[in-house]
Amino acid sequence: MDRRREEPLRLALLGCGSVGSQVVRLLREQRADLTARIGAPVDLVGVAVRRPELQRDAEIPAELLTTDAAGLVSRGDVDLVVEVIGGIEPARSLILSALENGASVVTANKALLAEDGATLFAAAEKANRDLYFEASVAGAIPILRPLRESLAGDRVRRVTGIVNGTTNFILDKMDTLGSGFAEVLEEAQELGFAEADPTADIEGYDAASKAAILASLAFHTRVTAADVYREGISEVSAADIASARRMGSVVKLLAICELREGSHGPAVSARVHPAMIPRSHPLASVREAYNAVFVESDAAGRLMFYGPGAGGAPTASAVLGDLVSAARHRLDDVRGAGESTYAQCEVLPMGQTETRYHVALDVDDRAGVLAAVALAFAEHDVSIQTVRQEGHGHDAQLVVVSHRATDAALSATVDSLRTMDFVHDVSSVMRVEGDSE
Amino acid sequence: MDRRREEPLRLALLGCGSVGSQVVRLLREQRADLTARIGAPVDLVGVAVRRPELQRDAEIPAELLTTDAAGLVSRGDVDLVVEVIGGIEPARSLILSALENGASVVTANKALLAEDGATLFAAAEKANRDLYFEASVAGAIPILRPLRESLAGDRVRRVTGIVNGTTNFILDKMDTLGSGFAEVLEEAQELGFAEADPTADIEGYDAASKAAILASLAFHTRVTAADVYREGISEVSAADIASARRMGSVVKLLAICELREGSHGPAVSARVHPAMIPRSHPLASVREAYNAVFVESDAAGRLMFYGPGAGGAPTASAVLGDLVSAARHRLDDVRGAGESTYAQCEVLPMGQTETRYHVALDVDDRAGVLAAVALAFAEHDVSIQTVRQEGHGHDAQLVVVSHRATDAALSATVDSLRTMDFVHDVSSVMRVEGDSE
Repeated sequence: MDRRREEPLRLALLGCGSVGSQVVRLLREQRADLTARIGAPVDLVGVAVRRPELQRDAEIPAELLTTDAAGLVSRGDVDLVVEVIGGIEPARSLILSALENGASVVTANKALLAEDGATLFAAAEKANRDLYFEASVAGAIPILRPLRESLAGDRVRRVTGIVNGTTNFILDKMDTLGSGFAEVLEEAQELGFAEADPTADIEGYDAASKAAILASLAFHTRVTAADVYREGISEVSAADIASARRMGSVVKLLAICELREGSHGPAVSARVHPAMIPRSHPLASVREAYNAVFVESDAAGRLMFYGPGAGGAPTASAVLGDLVSAARHRLDDVRGAGESTYAQCEVLPMGQTETRYHVALDVDDRAGVLAAVALAFAEHDVSIQTVRQEGHGHDAQLVVVSHRATDAALSATVDSLRTMDFVHDVSSVMRVEGDSE
Repeated sequence: MDRRREEPLRLALLGCGSVGSQVVRLLREQRADLTARIGAPVDLVGVAVRRPELQRDAEIPAELLTTDAAGLVSRGDVDLVVEVIGGIEPARSLILSALENGASVVTANKALLAEDGATLFAAAEKANRDLYFEASVAGAIPILRPLRESLAGDRVRRVTGIVNGTTNFILDKMDTLGSGFAEVLEEAQELGFAEADPTADIEGYDAASKAAILASLAFHTRVTAADVYREGISEVSAADIASARRMGSVVKLLAICELREGSHGPAVSARVHPAMIPRSHPLASVREAYNAVFVESDAAGRLMFYGPGAGGAPTASAVLGDLVSAARHRLDDVRGAGESTYAQCEVLPMGQTETRYHVALDVDDRAGVLAAVALAFAEHDVSIQTVRQEGHGHDAQLVVVSHRATDAALSATVDSLRTMDFVHDVSSVMRVEGDSE
């Protein structure tokens, strides 16, 4: 099969913000290498933007700019479309139109894939075109391709990711400086590590979309953002971080996807929440705005993939990697592997997920309190790993770390502790992850 | 394109040691998943072994075992061949015969790929079949596919790997226990982390093969094991490790592949040697027999891939990932991307490689010595980053760390220091890597 051809592949770019500009720059700077690696040059034939008059990082000939994205993807002579607009609409309609019109699509759109990937994959299947999205999870880190392909002969048991740079930056600063959440968020916003409206990041929506994508690929089943249990970091206090530190742990916002036994065969769970992990865990050393994904599988064992999780150039690197694959396939008139959802696993609700809890209670400092607390755990069939008393008198605090139990049982335990008259306050509740007990 | 077919794909296995046995086990245990992921079942039709009478971990029907490997690969009805014999011959002849007879090949054979990959790739190209080898470098860690595909749109500048588990285990123990090399080697042999004849590991031959493979993929050029500069760890002393510790560093056996400017365009260098790296570097935290590969590229930035670098099951995971890709391609009657050597870079000799040196000198404790040492560096155009004096009188030692310079200049500096009458001994010379200065 001879890949070489004289005629260039024709590429349309949808969106030209920080990622799109870097895609344009790399296409130009690496043109000779890309041509050699693909077997044909890639020509940019159009860039759809909302405001053509804006100054951009990349030099784009004015005649390529258009506000008519729908017209660009449906003109019929486009081989490849890169979508970096984000959001649900018009991105979805544009991707569907691109596929219908015979283009392969590379997208960084985590929200769309996690909400309605099924529609996109079905359209790609019908059109016999590729739909690639490495850039949608963990930026530059190659994680989707390893899950889809390198681990295709293995059974993945758990994927634990630090997949949101903003929250990792904030939690890392809270840990190193001892500062409170609000103060560090403000600093992150000044430094450009957090958006003016940081909700999608700090409340875990961004990570939940990524968890849905990771779970779908790892377990060959369909998981959407709505299936993912989600808690953000806005309630994480300096006291939580200090308490984690005393346990030799650190607080991270984790996206955790697990393969479990359900009542009718294999089931999966997917969740995003802050958790304490031991400082010896490989994920604990992921600092600042870096991302990492830790994969546990039957045969390979424990793997970790680490790198920058966001930013224009890193995300563009992932986009271009996908673009090279899609372009090679166009030249050979073939298609890579499509969606793999044969396993059709049940998605377990959070209550049935197993985890461990760290609970800090402000209590009366008197005999019988510890016994009563221990009884509350026992009544919910939760066994205790450690109890530590801190302070005395009015400042007495009990810190309990449980063994593994269902989230429902742990949560019910905390609810019952709240009703006890000698418990003045449940000052910290946080899940504990990352060790085998 | 419909992947499903009733007829199974036919697989021949060459070699059935620890990796081969795990391949057989996983093929059986994951049969349903593999069938769903590939689109057809994979049937094992023959296993070539030298001694069929041996007890093996995997249950293999006696009628599948054969000592006639050449007959197995040439019988003409085999779709896929997995080669886990290792070594140059008969592995090379068997792989060539398998490709000629229409099979795609998955191999874990680093020595063969690094010595004569060109012959194998040419045969795969001619036969229009896949030749995959993820398991040849860093065991279970997906690193070759990310380099070949995920980073195909980026420019990789440097790959730094801990790719030999035996030497990492030994250096880690020397660091944590303060023990000497010989003592730890013996312990490693007792624990099964080092072979009875550990030469291939401790003298860096194994790592050099992997460096050649990594450099070829990262830089799209041909690099063989003979192109790789190689020093092992048998000369690393407890004093070197202690000296590294005082600098906040740790000693690792690194495989380093770099893209450089040569006299006629881009050039590459590839080398394996012990080096001091700062404890803050992500590779410094790679403990015991784990492997990791650190990749620096223009757009993606700094990535790291971490996991088990050897062992039957981890290596089998990598083999099966390749097998799924090759099997999908057989069903679709297509081929994945072949060898990419378009760049045809010059390979620089070690003397032209740039690095930094840590040099410890036993010297006379008198005025003028430091000035004379500094002059020796300056005469070779090597600038000094730090000088530290340790001890006094007969125990006086100067520890010099240079700035970046060519290895030839650094080596010549050390040679001239050895001739100076106030230098009693050059007690430690080691390269320093892993920071940008």
